[in-house]
Amino acid sequence: MMTDFKEIILTHKLSALFSKASFGIEKESQRITGAGTIAKTNHPTIFGNRSFHPYIQTDFAESQPELITPPMQSIEETHEWLTAIHDVVLRSLPEDEYLLPCSIPPTMPASEEIKVAKLDSGDDVAYREYLVSVYGNKKQMVSGIHFNFELNPALIKELHQLSGSAGTLKSFQSDVYLKMAHNFIRHQWIMTYLMGGSISAGSSYFEKETQHDLPLDRYTRSIRSSKYGYVNKADVHVSFESIDAYVQDIEEMVTTGKLIAEKEFYSTVRFRGANKARDLLTNGIAYLEFRLFDLNPFAEFGMHKEDMYFIHYFLLYLLWIEKDASEDEMKIGKEMNYSTALENPLQPSAFQAEGLAVMEGMLQMLEAIGAEAKISAIVKEKIEAFHNPEKTVAGQMVNALGAGEDKTTWAASLAKKYKEAAWKRPYALRGFEDMELSTQILMFDAIQKGLKINMLDRYDQFISLTYKNHREYVKNGNMTAKDSYIGPLIMENKVVTKKILAENGFAVPDSGEYHSVAAALRDYSIFAGKGIVVKPKSTNYGLGISIFKDGATFENYEKAVRIAFEEDEDILVEDFLAGTEYRFFVIGNETKAVLLRVPANVVGDGSHTIRQLVEEKNKDSLRGKNHRSPLELIATGELEKLTIQGQGYTFDSIPPAGTTVRLRDNSNISTGGDSIDFTDQMDDSYKQLAVQMAASLGVAVCGVDIIIPDHSVPATKVEPNYGVIEANFNPAMLIHIYPYQGKSRRLTMEILRLLFPEMQLEEE
Amino acid sequence: MMTDFKEIILTHKLSALFSKASFGIEKESQRITGAGTIAKTNHPTIFGNRSFHPYIQTDFAESQPELITPPMQSIEETHEWLTAIHDVVLRSLPEDEYLLPCSIPPTMPASEEIKVAKLDSGDDVAYREYLVSVYGNKKQMVSGIHFNFELNPALIKELHQLSGSAGTLKSFQSDVYLKMAHNFIRHQWIMTYLMGGSISAGSSYFEKETQHDLPLDRYTRSIRSSKYGYVNKADVHVSFESIDAYVQDIEEMVTTGKLIAEKEFYSTVRFRGANKARDLLTNGIAYLEFRLFDLNPFAEFGMHKEDMYFIHYFLLYLLWIEKDASEDEMKIGKEMNYSTALENPLQPSAFQAEGLAVMEGMLQMLEAIGAEAKISAIVKEKIEAFHNPEKTVAGQMVNALGAGEDKTTWAASLAKKYKEAAWKRPYALRGFEDMELSTQILMFDAIQKGLKINMLDRYDQFISLTYKNHREYVKNGNMTAKDSYIGPLIMENKVVTKKILAENGFAVPDSGEYHSVAAALRDYSIFAGKGIVVKPKSTNYGLGISIFKDGATFENYEKAVRIAFEEDEDILVEDFLAGTEYRFFVIGNETKAVLLRVPANVVGDGSHTIRQLVEEKNKDSLRGKNHRSPLELIATGELEKLTIQGQGYTFDSIPPAGTTVRLRDNSNISTGGDSIDFTDQMDDSYKQLAVQMAASLGVAVCGVDIIIPDHSVPATKVEPNYGVIEANFNPAMLIHIYPYQGKSRRLTMEILRLLFPEMQLEEE
Repeated sequence: MMTDFKEIILTHKLSALFSKASFGIEKESQRITGAGTIAKTNHPTIFGNRSFHPYIQTDFAESQPELITPPMQSIEETHEWLTAIHDVVLRSLPEDEYLLPCSIPPTMPASEEIKVAKLDSGDDVAYREYLVSVYGNKKQMVSGIHFNFELNPALIKELHQLSGSAGTLKSFQSDVYLKMAHNFIRHQWIMTYLMGGSISAGSSYFEKETQHDLPLDRYTRSIRSSKYGYVNKADVHVSFESIDAYVQDIEEMVTTGKLIAEKEFYSTVRFRGANKARDLLTNGIAYLEFRLFDLNPFAEFGMHKEDMYFIHYFLLYLLWIEKDASEDEMKIGKEMNYSTALENPLQPSAFQAEGLAVMEGMLQMLEAIGAEAKISAIVKEKIEAFHNPEKTVAGQMVNALGAGEDKTTWAASLAKKYKEAAWKRPYALRGFEDMELSTQILMFDAIQKGLKINMLDRYDQFISLTYKNHREYVKNGNMTAKDSYIGPLIMENKVVTKKILAENGFAVPDSGEYHSVAAALRDYSIFAGKGIVVKPKSTNYGLGISIFKDGATFENYEKAVRIAFEEDEDILVEDFLAGTEYRFFVIGNETKAVLLRVPANVVGDGSHTIRQLVEEKNKDSLRGKNHRSPLELIATGELEKLTIQGQGYTFDSIPPAGTTVRLRDNSNISTGGDSIDFTDQMDDSYKQLAVQMAASLGVAVCGVDIIIPDHSVPATKVEPNYGVIEANFNPAMLIHIYPYQGKSRRLTMEILRLLFPEMQLEEE
Repeated sequence: MMTDFKEIILTHKLSALFSKASFGIEKESQRITGAGTIAKTNHPTIFGNRSFHPYIQTDFAESQPELITPPMQSIEETHEWLTAIHDVVLRSLPEDEYLLPCSIPPTMPASEEIKVAKLDSGDDVAYREYLVSVYGNKKQMVSGIHFNFELNPALIKELHQLSGSAGTLKSFQSDVYLKMAHNFIRHQWIMTYLMGGSISAGSSYFEKETQHDLPLDRYTRSIRSSKYGYVNKADVHVSFESIDAYVQDIEEMVTTGKLIAEKEFYSTVRFRGANKARDLLTNGIAYLEFRLFDLNPFAEFGMHKEDMYFIHYFLLYLLWIEKDASEDEMKIGKEMNYSTALENPLQPSAFQAEGLAVMEGMLQMLEAIGAEAKISAIVKEKIEAFHNPEKTVAGQMVNALGAGEDKTTWAASLAKKYKEAAWKRPYALRGFEDMELSTQILMFDAIQKGLKINMLDRYDQFISLTYKNHREYVKNGNMTAKDSYIGPLIMENKVVTKKILAENGFAVPDSGEYHSVAAALRDYSIFAGKGIVVKPKSTNYGLGISIFKDGATFENYEKAVRIAFEEDEDILVEDFLAGTEYRFFVIGNETKAVLLRVPANVVGDGSHTIRQLVEEKNKDSLRGKNHRSPLELIATGELEKLTIQGQGYTFDSIPPAGTTVRLRDNSNISTGGDSIDFTDQMDDSYKQLAVQMAASLGVAVCGVDIIIPDHSVPATKVEPNYGVIEANFNPAMLIHIYPYQGKSRRLTMEILRLLFPEMQLEEE
């Protein structure tokens, strides 16, 4: 293919389109124990059913999870997904299990201990058994990363038109990918030089090898990319010249028995877009899969984001250059890769000059297409690595192990470090930490159970979830199609909510509704002398609410009325109900959680000051700032100072052991309050009432706030023993999932159960 | 009952509670023709089924609609409801039918022409036939107003406690209402003096009378409240002293055949709260019904709001005074009323001194309870009327007819005036004109068809509608439980809407989504040279949208991007689609209306200037300002000036006959655009597509904006021939109901059909 893409791209200003592409990562690795040996346990059942799981599969061995990102439109998003899936896997593994961060297990198990993945399909298992018989099961234990790459279809369309190509768009597209594949095979050694990471293997790895110069006592750049890697037998020859030649060859290999199936054919590049090679003739090549990447043990998720960027632009460069490598040149490229793979990691590449030339060419391309500076910076680091082999991944590994450190111990300690990092903020989903925590946790659960997530609008917390052909949309973690539209509209309006709850027979506090200050003041005498709550009609965060437990003077009443009117055009004056307020979280026809919120407090121990007690309590990793964690840090500001003064303390007081000191009067979690799970203690009658209330509002997900004087005395028709004061749509889930005290209620999983009852999702 | 309520109210500051009450008005009147004669048509079928209609019933005659307000908590609301029901009735009547504004028809039809109301219940019809046989059917043709009054239950509870009453709350409540009834009967003549309005009747009215001094050739204050009104036979005696006495008497009257049924007993006050008198013994009196009010012909709806206020405080005064009228005093009161009724309307009352004393007492009460100044002002006007009989209703009527005007013509002309007023803004519902027009129209339809409306939050356009036991909530005219919650959340977000529509196979314009100016600018080259639309992700009113039909320069592109980012954190750059934009209004599984919006324009006639043509077009009563009407006035400001300049005109140009002059480039109705109904012209394929789109978004009510190059060429899978650019929840209905051109589509009625399919609501 001789088209000068560079010329077309520059002339027609297609740089932006040229840089757009889709990416997908498949990353295998072994589950290991803390001792660094391969885990003997089964693939965790917590990941649900492998038959459909889009993100977490097993590769060859039962101990070998394969993590798969969905195809994404940018490296950033691809890396985020890889991060998130790792977060889910690492936090879902048993306590003493980890992910081995390198391609070849430093300690290889005995053959009989290696268990082929327990897949549902008998054919899949049989195929794996066949592979073992031919290649031995040690090589199957090796892991790597596959990098899937698709150009922007609009780019291919433009190039097709502008190049004046006589063929169809489809055949043109295949030609583009063929050129990329040809040039990749010619230059793939560069990947191995820079990113090779399987520097050694134990002798058992080579048990099926017949050669004598095995790299047993020396380091290489990549055993996996060498001739000792996973390669087909010598009599397997498949041309990459054209699709026709490729299909003809591969079918012949199968017909003559040199391959048991097409999929046994191994290559560092694979054409994608057809299940059977022959279909490529009609479908064309949809995208390419590059398969030669070792795990980088220094990268938490197997590959640095910078290396993903590097690969992206390296692949573009393969199109940018005029050259389209011939069959012979590809043969040379393969040999160069094999020899690079076995080079001493601390020695410069035998092909340094070619490598530097390609890097310089890349830099020129980046300048010509106006790529971001960060990309050139990455390429410049690679140039540095060509000059200094210690900067390659293999070079770094050799140096890391230089002091004679045990490879197994070294790998296990990295694995532990990476798992620890995943647990640092257990309520967050790394990769998506800019989103609301509730959505992060919901996505965590969805990834774990294998629901396909489509990010509809990240900034709007809007996703879709798909299981087989069933799709559901979710906004802000629990706003779904299970609610009717009118429900949230009702709950947005306290007046309407109360009227409807009252109409349906629930106990609500008496109240007056006012549209003007004058009207509210005129009715003061109605409320004088009894406990009241003055509040705006529609706000939701406690703003503008005044509570007078023992009645208000006219002056205070007037002040409260004016404050409430600052927040809304209408206000409510409501009877104050004595008792404790509980939040009931209803999903479907069940109250899934009950929570008690307690004002910010510390409990004295007789020896520490209040300030010290606060500092100690704030060490809890669940406490943070600005809703970025399940609990908020307790502050020691003016308001807190006043509150403890009321109890006779200063921050330097040492309260007696067992004495609770309140730092706030309000119980909001957002001002340092404690969340206490009360689900099991609450009398069932109230839980049923909450469900009925949600139903009367037409919603499946609802947070109902009920005042109850005694949670152990049941509610009855005659003696309601409660007053419902508010119903909330899109209620906070986090406080129930990570309470300060009591049992965690995984409400996000309950939302998934509500949306996908057919999945029968089990408790963790 | 000797309790001094005045003392308790003042001591315990209960004035606010004392002034709170519930009110309900029942207003009868005759349907007449333009000639002033009673209409011979049936009760209009447009009002649906009388068997359940809460607002529009028939009284005695088929020609006699009875308008019933729901019980309301204030006079304001009661009057609003009375207004609204009148608006519905007047605008639903046949072209030459009106409501007679006075109690006694000036032209009484022949007995055989009077048709008893065609009710479903045979018993109801038979009872009416019986009444005719006893009283004649002329008296049955007389209409009046019943005023229902209930004190605030909390007031009664407080009074019961504070008075230290030994009896139950229920019996105390009955006692309170008995006192009010006693004193009312004693002083009811004041009502007749001030508000009597049946000043004369033709001779046929008296056909069953045996007396000789009939008031045939002179005016009275109220024939209807006189002994010639609708009164029981002389042998009917029922005590009002106590409930026991009342029940005993009324049952005896029925047993002895003096009354055919309890309901035949007529009194100016009726105890309410039980279907059978005997049930009052257990239920007690729930509220009182006052029945002696004539229609006030000068009041558009039969009674002035000021008179309703007067009655309210007059009734309170009856409790305020220490006196509780005895049986004898009530007898005197009755006689005083009879004699007042037959007084010469232009002469002072024989009981002027008593009247003035009551008025003075009322003023003192008003001051003591701190009532609003407007109430005292009303009472002062009544004092004026005691001094000057010409100011009474009867006095005014006599003066109005003084010049010898024909009574029938006079009444008919008032009736016509009132109907005309109802048609002045046919798209509005008087009484609720502060609400959104869509809700006003929906309420109009609901009142017409007899759906019970509960105003949940007027300021929030939140109502409920009830038919039998089926209740539905509606916000802003068409937001209901028929939509799922996720649908509007999807539509709020243009990006998400597009993604979901595209996923579901609908044709949407290609677009890029950007979170930063830099990212959007980087992609300029992708959009250069083609028509594009730059818009913020979420706004809905055309704000921040730039359209470049033929592509944008980089400078203009950058400007547009920055403008869009001012409205939202995210923007879209979308391919511009050539064609005409239509609004499809989907309800349920049907496209109920298609609308074309045309920019503000005038069509030349060869003789008027553009300014004159605009003035002429603006005379259309559908045009107004600020969304208070279906169309907006066309402005002649700077923008319009520029637009016509582009076509070579000034405002003083006289465009040739038939030439259309655009005054705006945008087609928004809010800037004077024309709405043109296109429902019948649009190819069915597009209407079906719109329905499928709404379904894919999970909503039953949706406004879909589709660009179609040729509405007569069907859409097919292969050739979509369209592009959907937006979907809207809570779409405007008004523009379809009152289009500038083409057929009206009553979408509010369609919403009622969607909500209440069981009602099988017929087209008008």
